[in-house]
Amino acid sequence: MTTDIEGILREAGELLVERFRGNMEHSEKERFDLVTATDAEIEHLLVAHLKALHPDDAFLGEESGELSGMSGDRWLIDPIDGTTDFIMGKPYFAISIARESGGRIVEGHVYNPVSNEMYSAIAGEGKACLNGEAIHVSRTSSIGESLVVFGFSARMSSIRKYHDEWTAVFEGCRKAVGWTTPALTLCNVARGRIDAFIDFGASSVGQAAASFILEQAGGALLNYDLTAYDHRISGVIGATPTLLPELLKTREG
Amino acid sequence: MTTDIEGILREAGELLVERFRGNMEHSEKERFDLVTATDAEIEHLLVAHLKALHPDDAFLGEESGELSGMSGDRWLIDPIDGTTDFIMGKPYFAISIARESGGRIVEGHVYNPVSNEMYSAIAGEGKACLNGEAIHVSRTSSIGESLVVFGFSARMSSIRKYHDEWTAVFEGCRKAVGWTTPALTLCNVARGRIDAFIDFGASSVGQAAASFILEQAGGALLNYDLTAYDHRISGVIGATPTLLPELLKTREG
Repeated sequence: MTTDIEGILREAGELLVERFRGNMEHSEKERFDLVTATDAEIEHLLVAHLKALHPDDAFLGEESGELSGMSGDRWLIDPIDGTTDFIMGKPYFAISIARESGGRIVEGHVYNPVSNEMYSAIAGEGKACLNGEAIHVSRTSSIGESLVVFGFSARMSSIRKYHDEWTAVFEGCRKAVGWTTPALTLCNVARGRIDAFIDFGASSVGQAAASFILEQAGGALLNYDLTAYDHRISGVIGATPTLLPELLKTREG
Repeated sequence: MTTDIEGILREAGELLVERFRGNMEHSEKERFDLVTATDAEIEHLLVAHLKALHPDDAFLGEESGELSGMSGDRWLIDPIDGTTDFIMGKPYFAISIARESGGRIVEGHVYNPVSNEMYSAIAGEGKACLNGEAIHVSRTSSIGESLVVFGFSARMSSIRKYHDEWTAVFEGCRKAVGWTTPALTLCNVARGRIDAFIDFGASSVGQAAASFILEQAGGALLNYDLTAYDHRISGVIGATPTLLPELLKTREG
């Protein structure tokens, strides 16, 4: 049995890639049933391994719900961040696990098994890493130069909400796109490829590891309603700290 | 020197992945300069190798323009399909090359070097392949069950155009998203992961290989204005043939 966190993620990732590459020329129902089954399968594998490693911890999965423990620590597990991309053939999905202690995240891991990108951060180390190398946010400070991701697919009401609330950013940044893989996208802010990620619906469990990684990489975080960041609240704004004041100015007055 | 097409693509892909993984925590200008330089670098490598293999053919690249030849055949080269995803850290980009003979495509290759997905089709073989295995389109026949990709990022005028012209599809399909990597997305229609790709701006050179691959996988193609498909015209509609009539019905009356 695998006995370290990254080993566990690689084993689960191997299974996830196998499912991704498998035949998915199915009906719509079968496609969605398959992703639900894969979600459950990956989560089951992760919980079994993590429980062997940390028998007294609690677990909260997007699929299996809550599993109590005595230690006071809890693991938050999202077996597939980016299910839409997974179903539709795009290799931009990840496994995300975070360890929570006293209500705060103390360890986060996000792993894209197709591109073999392993992001991680552990409290006290003062850094975030991609495949073992320290990463940090960009130094972008103007909206006109920024690359911004909003958390939308093609639901017109969601697009309009982002556009109405962030018009100056939506229209004025160098490039804006809509992506639906919150954890990996927060990690792309952490490594400086994009300058901000704005998502009103990102799930609490799904964003826990990546928001901690972003924070450790020097990033700034807020809840979507602009209050102080709390990973237990759905939605997130993650940005390089030099850009965040500019983003907030567009919401004034 | 590499002497077969897939070998050439793998060699170019290795370089492309190296550039993708390299440090891109740059200013906005540097980020876009880097992708322009990489585009040119990959295209140069492809043209050099292909010219050694087919010295009498002509070449048309998105970067280097036209290079004449005596054979009557011409290679259409798109060194990076999906530059936005490449810049912003998403492994959904590809190298695309197509051979044109007498104005028709006779061979197409689309390669995502991160996920190691090599799509190809050669005239006369009556099939399209992904990593050597034959692929085919889905059997989806109703809009309500379909997965549809439109070719938008977050430019509101483009989103509104798709929404206005395809309202019933945009609102009524099982899932719609906006993606900006036309060649790989047409290939995802070819392998049945998605049911339709609708893009009013896809470049002629960029879509040439993938539209041929989709056709060989059993897919149906139209120009964006609903006329008979011609790869030399920008824009494309690629769909599984069981769904196309339903898509077109939404445009009637």
